[in-house]
Amino acid sequence: MIFKTPTTHFLTCGSGEGGTRPNSFDGALLQAQIGNTNLVRTSSIVPPKSRFVEPHPLPQGALVPVAYAAISSEMPGELMSAGVAVAYPADPSQAGVIMEYASRGHKEDIEAIARRMAEEALKMRGQPIGQIRSIAVQHRVENIGTALAAVVLWDPA
Amino acid sequence: MIFKTPTTHFLTCGSGEGGTRPNSFDGALLQAQIGNTNLVRTSSIVPPKSRFVEPHPLPQGALVPVAYAAISSEMPGELMSAGVAVAYPADPSQAGVIMEYASRGHKEDIEAIARRMAEEALKMRGQPIGQIRSIAVQHRVENIGTALAAVVLWDPA
Amino acid sequence: MIFKTPTTHFLTCGSGEGGTRPNSFDGALLQAQIGNTNLVRTSSIVPPKSRFVEPHPLPQGALVPVAYAAISSEMPGELMSAGVAVAYPADPSQAGVIMEYASRGHKEDIEAIARRMAEEALKMRGQPIGQIRSIAVQHRVENIGTALAAVVLWDPA
Repeated sequence: MIFKTPTTHFLTCGSGEGGTRPNSFDGALLQAQIGNTNLVRTSSIVPPKSRFVEPHPLPQGALVPVAYAAISSEMPGELMSAGVAVAYPADPSQAGVIMEYASRGHKEDIEAIARRMAEEALKMRGQPIGQIRSIAVQHRVENIGTALAAVVLWDPA
Repeated sequence: MIFKTPTTHFLTCGSGEGGTRPNSFDGALLQAQIGNTNLVRTSSIVPPKSRFVEPHPLPQGALVPVAYAAISSEMPGELMSAGVAVAYPADPSQAGVIMEYASRGHKEDIEAIARRMAEEALKMRGQPIGQIRSIAVQHRVENIGTALAAVVLWDPA
Repeated sequence: MIFKTPTTHFLTCGSGEGGTRPNSFDGALLQAQIGNTNLVRTSSIVPPKSRFVEPHPLPQGALVPVAYAAISSEMPGELMSAGVAVAYPADPSQAGVIMEYASRGHKEDIEAIARRMAEEALKMRGQPIGQIRSIAVQHRVENIGTALAAVVLWDPA
């Protein structure tokens, strides 16, 4: 194995404004409490037996595996949302699946789409669903904004 | 060194249909046997002396370095393909280079493009070519589909 | 923690021409001395106390965390640039922030944009700025070209 497999995970989200798109993205990461880490984007599995935990600070500069969706816009007044969902199988020896979605629109709608995609992913695996967790955030653009939702994979040891 | 350097690699590909693009991407990953892992995308080197192996199951939820090409489409009837090629230098102390390509079109054409790009990459390094390996998959879209080809970097220890 | 946190970093840049976009990207990586590694893209923090070092060769095939900006073009004659900037806080116990930018245009302009974004990122954190480092490269396209600038995160141990 190249990397240690993550043993915990948490869901987080945030939004931000900035003078540029990257700065508004940075602001969203900061609000989500992951702005001072080095995010390594990954496709999108919660390892079996990974423990669900509350969002918590991570070491500054740490390399952090994360699945996320984000949307940025420079259109003042535009409403946009980002959401993530995790579908956990009833069988705890099997992996959970993360789905991410971001688009213009209300957070309820975007979150529902992420949940349906996560649900379909477990169906495709023939795994009965135990539980679905999700989180979403919406943001109305002032000047330049970003909305972001993430599942952070971690190992506290 | 931050990460362990991969010591084995394999080529794999797959295609899938789903109710959404992310779900069809997930289906393609599952067919390629890497759908239950956390893929970490990387640019595109086979380390010297990395051993070529057959595709094999990976631990669920593991973080897996991978170079891949993928294409998704929602146009029923459209034919699309994804391919990867590895050019290995004649000198085994030197790195091999991976090239990925995905596009509309037949798999023979897409695979040939990936092979030519990998060949050019070794030429650019002044390395005579020992061997080229490649793989490709084509998919005709039913509703929403994805085709994907990948080189997985791994370490069985 | 899943991964070791990087303890050193360096800035590098390069440009290249190739028969295809991926090959010109490969050429730019080679000129930047990171063409024979497996780049793992990360968002964009210099960990506290990370040591600034000169660009140096990395082990072939190693997995290397990197923040970068790149731009490719197939328009002969087009001038394009890529730049990265790191803003270091006056307080060495705090993280530095990397910003990347690539666009058509002169390298002085692109580098200035990256520097301003990095500066804004520290302001957003309420951190007085200690120093800003930056690097940029410009490239005039012959046939198919790429310009790339990167901050490489590493650990020599």
